[in-house]
Amino acid sequence: MSPPVRVLGSAAFTNVARVLVCLEEVGAEYEVVDIDFHAKEHKGPDHLARNPFGQVPAFQDGDLTLFQSRAISRYVLRKYKTPDGSSNLLRDGDLEGSALVDAWLDVEALQYEPAVHAVFVQHRVIPALGGTPDERVIGDSVGKLREVLEVYEAQLAKHRYLAGDAVSLADLSHFPYTHYFMGMPYATVFDPFPRVKAWWEDLVARPAVRKVAAMMDARRSG
Amino acid sequence: MSPPVRVLGSAAFTNVARVLVCLEEVGAEYEVVDIDFHAKEHKGPDHLARNPFGQVPAFQDGDLTLFQSRAISRYVLRKYKTPDGSSNLLRDGDLEGSALVDAWLDVEALQYEPAVHAVFVQHRVIPALGGTPDERVIGDSVGKLREVLEVYEAQLAKHRYLAGDAVSLADLSHFPYTHYFMGMPYATVFDPFPRVKAWWEDLVARPAVRKVAAMMDARRSG
Repeated sequence: MSPPVRVLGSAAFTNVARVLVCLEEVGAEYEVVDIDFHAKEHKGPDHLARNPFGQVPAFQDGDLTLFQSRAISRYVLRKYKTPDGSSNLLRDGDLEGSALVDAWLDVEALQYEPAVHAVFVQHRVIPALGGTPDERVIGDSVGKLREVLEVYEAQLAKHRYLAGDAVSLADLSHFPYTHYFMGMPYATVFDPFPRVKAWWEDLVARPAVRKVAAMMDARRSG
Repeated sequence: MSPPVRVLGSAAFTNVARVLVCLEEVGAEYEVVDIDFHAKEHKGPDHLARNPFGQVPAFQDGDLTLFQSRAISRYVLRKYKTPDGSSNLLRDGDLEGSALVDAWLDVEALQYEPAVHAVFVQHRVIPALGGTPDERVIGDSVGKLREVLEVYEAQLAKHRYLAGDAVSLADLSHFPYTHYFMGMPYATVFDPFPRVKAWWEDLVARPAVRKVAAMMDARRSG
């Protein structure tokens, strides 16, 4: 039996948590290896050989080394795809279905996450570094997020999930950052969107998501 | 014979040009349909039904409608993949190869393009709207681009292309924005990176890329 795959980086990082949700969804065996940012391990030669940008996660499966969380997620979901398609979260092999997953995953990466990330930086990161949040940036970003959620609300009126009536990576990829966002006062931006809220409740009820949420929270309070 | 696929949006838009390069690479039959932004056609019900964010491109293949340029590009490359793999620009069916294409495509989308886009907005868009470019934003963005190019230079010392020794979507996806960037004074940021410059010259010598470059330039001067 081959050794378990390795994820380098703590579950508290949203990009790491994205990969962990995929590994949990497919029931893969894996180990998480922390990277010591205080000791600048992320800028050391070993980690830069795994992730040339010095970021987390990095991922190892035997001789294969990967980086970029959505690329790793795709790899995990392809590698552990069940033969009957029951856990085909990419719709691999389905030309139209996979295109819809790709489209909504790009929406998450290029429209949803930049808005949520900007709020997170202003509300959590800058104060932690002794700075003052820029309320204009927060307002602009919450406004952009509202526009994205309007599109989601309309899409979820047509389908149970973003890329159709079955859950996919496009939905799950929203989990890590939204988990943190829902603990901020700006979470009220979700209130006018009942279908989005129901979709979120559905996602966080999944065993894989609950397990990774606990890992994220344990790391942040630890 | 089925009607050709339709791309909605002008070739002058980098996200449209990305899709056109893929269609040209695989030799697909297609038609380009302009969207009249002055008449606010992009915010009209017909276009919003194709692209809920009111952006370009949108894409139609029979009953299938798609948006997000990299998702459309993946669809095109999967649909027209040659049986012998000679134009498999995604390395579809190759678990490790496709993961490397995914990783470097995510680098392009999430690290390279944001830096180039920010310079483009300051240098071209804001002056066209009567504003003054923010030199600090330009300086920060050129600095981020330089860091990305350092990683590319090291990667291209190991492989001829970003995701290995054969060209892939990860390389081609850089073309549209870089085509515009190379016409700006900030293009000197590429000068210290001879392997990146050779990679770029190699890309722009491809017949598909030359054809789309001419379409982009015709639209901008037209």
